[in-house]
Amino acid sequence: MSFSRVQSLMAENGLDAALIADNANIFYLARSVFRGYIYLSLDREPLYLIIKPLDLKGDRWHFIRKPEMIPEVLAECGLPLPRKIGLELDDIAYSQVMRLKGIFPGAEIQNVSSVMRLARMVKDEDELALLREDGRKHVAVYSRIPSLYKPGMSDIELQIEIERVLRMEGCLGYLRTSGNLMEINMGSVLNGDNADVPTPYDFAVGGGGVDVSLPVGADGRIMKNGTSVMIDMNGNFNGYQTDLTRTWAIESVTDEVLEIHNQSIAICRMIEREALPGVPVKVLYEKAEKMVKDAGLENIFMGHRQHAQFIGHGVGIQLNEWPVIMRKSPHIIEKNMVIAVEPKFVIPKVGAVGIENTYIVGESGLENITPAPEEMAVLTL
Amino acid sequence: MSFSRVQSLMAENGLDAALIADNANIFYLARSVFRGYIYLSLDREPLYLIIKPLDLKGDRWHFIRKPEMIPEVLAECGLPLPRKIGLELDDIAYSQVMRLKGIFPGAEIQNVSSVMRLARMVKDEDELALLREDGRKHVAVYSRIPSLYKPGMSDIELQIEIERVLRMEGCLGYLRTSGNLMEINMGSVLNGDNADVPTPYDFAVGGGGVDVSLPVGADGRIMKNGTSVMIDMNGNFNGYQTDLTRTWAIESVTDEVLEIHNQSIAICRMIEREALPGVPVKVLYEKAEKMVKDAGLENIFMGHRQHAQFIGHGVGIQLNEWPVIMRKSPHIIEKNMVIAVEPKFVIPKVGAVGIENTYIVGESGLENITPAPEEMAVLTL
Repeated sequence: MSFSRVQSLMAENGLDAALIADNANIFYLARSVFRGYIYLSLDREPLYLIIKPLDLKGDRWHFIRKPEMIPEVLAECGLPLPRKIGLELDDIAYSQVMRLKGIFPGAEIQNVSSVMRLARMVKDEDELALLREDGRKHVAVYSRIPSLYKPGMSDIELQIEIERVLRMEGCLGYLRTSGNLMEINMGSVLNGDNADVPTPYDFAVGGGGVDVSLPVGADGRIMKNGTSVMIDMNGNFNGYQTDLTRTWAIESVTDEVLEIHNQSIAICRMIEREALPGVPVKVLYEKAEKMVKDAGLENIFMGHRQHAQFIGHGVGIQLNEWPVIMRKSPHIIEKNMVIAVEPKFVIPKVGAVGIENTYIVGESGLENITPAPEEMAVLTL
Repeated sequence: MSFSRVQSLMAENGLDAALIADNANIFYLARSVFRGYIYLSLDREPLYLIIKPLDLKGDRWHFIRKPEMIPEVLAECGLPLPRKIGLELDDIAYSQVMRLKGIFPGAEIQNVSSVMRLARMVKDEDELALLREDGRKHVAVYSRIPSLYKPGMSDIELQIEIERVLRMEGCLGYLRTSGNLMEINMGSVLNGDNADVPTPYDFAVGGGGVDVSLPVGADGRIMKNGTSVMIDMNGNFNGYQTDLTRTWAIESVTDEVLEIHNQSIAICRMIEREALPGVPVKVLYEKAEKMVKDAGLENIFMGHRQHAQFIGHGVGIQLNEWPVIMRKSPHIIEKNMVIAVEPKFVIPKVGAVGIENTYIVGESGLENITPAPEEMAVLTL
C-alpha cells in the first residue's frame, strides 16, 4: 500500500503525523481526488477528511466543513494530537500552511514534501500496471502520426491533429506537474529553428509558442523540407503518465542529422545497460555527458542557445518527479523507479533531434514501456 | 499602466515594495512570462529580475541566477532595501516565501496576493481589447457546435471535436486558474444526469469525468433524446480568457425544460440592468436568488445534489478572478470589471440548463462580449 511506504519514511524523518492537501499527493494515497485533507499517522490507515464532494463513502471518510474541524475528527477516532506534524511546505501556499499550523498550536511543523516525493519515486505494482497501460496507448497514438501529416502543414496544425487522436484514445489531456515552472497544453511539437528558442519553463527543449502568454512549443511555422519535427506529447490516460518523444524528418534530412539523432538512441542504449539498482543517478548523467563530448556535440546537447541541466526525470502522477538525472542528483537507482530518459540535441537551422523513452527499473535492467520505433523516419505525402 | 494601479493599492496598504513570483501576476505586469521575479517599488517602473530565458532584452531587465542576488540589483539601481515588502502569500509555496523572506532580513513581510487580485479585478483598455477579441473568437467557435454533433455521439466525443475547432481558431488550450481547486482539460461538456455528479473542484457544475484521477466533466456517456448538453469550453486565445456557456437539447426536450433554461436568460437580463458601478456585488446575488425562489427553482439552482455558492466571477488572465458574485462578496461593481455570469440549473434525468456570458462593466450597463444565441436550440441530424 502506498501509505505504508509514506509511514516508513515519516518514521525515518521523526514525524508522528502528516496532513496532506496537494491534489497529486491525495490521488497517490487515496486513488481519488477530493477537496480536503488526508491525515496520516504512523500506525493507522489514513483518514480522509473531505470538504467536497459530499457523496464519497467508506470507512476512512470523514466530512468536515473547514480544516479547523480536524482535531475533533482525530478525537472521535481516538487519535492523539500530533507533536511533530508534516505539511507540504514545498507544495502549498504560505497562507494555507499558516492556517493549518494554527490548528495544531502545540505541534512542531516539518516539511513532508520531500517525504512524499521520495515515496512516489518508487512505484508499486498497481502504479506500474497503470504506467504500462499508458505506454501501450501512447505508442499506439504515435504509430498514427505519419498518417496525420500533410505537406504544407504548420507545427501547430500537426499538434492539434495529434491532440485529437490522443483524446480519442482516452488521453485525459490535463497534465499534472509539480510547482509553477511548467505550463503547457498537452505537450510540444517543435519544428526547425523554433526548437532553439529559449523557454522560461523547465522543459528539456523550448520553443516560442504561438502567443506571448504561453512561451513554449509550436509557434505556427510551416514545416519545411530539410527540417526536423520533435514530438513530445502527453501520455496521461489514467492519472499516471508516460513521457515519449520521437523525431521525424520533414521530407528529408542530411546524414549528419541522422547521425546526431542516432547518438540520442545510443545514449538511451547505454542508460538501459547502466541504470541498475544501486547505481548513483549522477553516474548516468556523467556517462551520457562523456558520450556527447567524445562525439563533439556538447554545444548542441539539451539545447543550443539555452541548455537544460538534466537528461531525464522520474514520471508518474506528475511529469517532473524524482529522480532527476542530473550532475548533482543525490539519488541512487532503485527497483521500480520509473524514469523518462530524453537525450536531445538542437541543430541550428534544422531543429531538435533525439528520442525519449519511459522505463521501469528492474533488477537486471530497464523495461522500456514506450517501445515505439526509434529511428528518424520521414514525414511526406 | 497596470503597474501604477498596483502601486496605488500598495501605498494604500502601507507597503513600500512588492516582489512578484506568480506566473499570472508576472504576465499581468510584464505582458511576458519568465522565470524570475518582478520587484515593484512605489514610485519607479518595475524591475524584471530574470532567471530564464536569457534572451529577453529591455531597460527593465536584469539577469540573476538566484533570488539571493536581488539585493545587489537593487543597490545597482539605487534602490533602498524595503522595510515592508509584499509577497504573494496566498499564491506561492511556504518554502519559497521563507527563502524570499531570508533575502530581506530586516523587512516586515505582508501579503500582496489580495493587492494583485484587486488590481487585476478592474481591467485597462489593452486588457479589454484582448478580452473582446477572445469573445469574438469564442462565439465564432460556438456557432459551429451544431455542425459537430452526430447522433449517437458521446459527450467526450463532442468535446474533442469542439477542442479541435477551438485550437484551429487559435485557442491556447491551457487554462490558467488561481489556487489548486481547479483541474480540467479545456473545459466541460455535460450531458444528462452526469451534470448532477458532484465534483471536488470549484466549478459551478460538476460531472464525474472519464477517470477517477480527474473527477470533472464529460463521463463518456452517449447523448440521448430528451436530455440537455451544457457546453462550457475554454476561451483563452491570448493570455486572457472569456467564459461562455450554451446549452443544447439533444433532439428534443419538454417545454418545462425550456422554461427553466429561459429563467437563466432572464437572470442574465436582470444582472445586465442592475450591475451598474457602485452596486454591491452581493446585491446581484440576492436578486438572482429571489428570482429563483419566486420561480420555485431553488432546489435545482447552481446544482442539485451539490450546490455552488456563486453565480458568477471575475475573469481575465485566470478563470477565477475577483469579484465573486456570491452572498458574502465584499466588493462593489466598478467600471471595467469583467464578469462571467452563469446562473445554471441541474434538472434530474435531463441535465444542466442555462447560459453564461462574459460582460464588461460600463458606466451605463454591461457590454456582453460573448453575444452567441442564447435560446436552447436542438442538436440533431
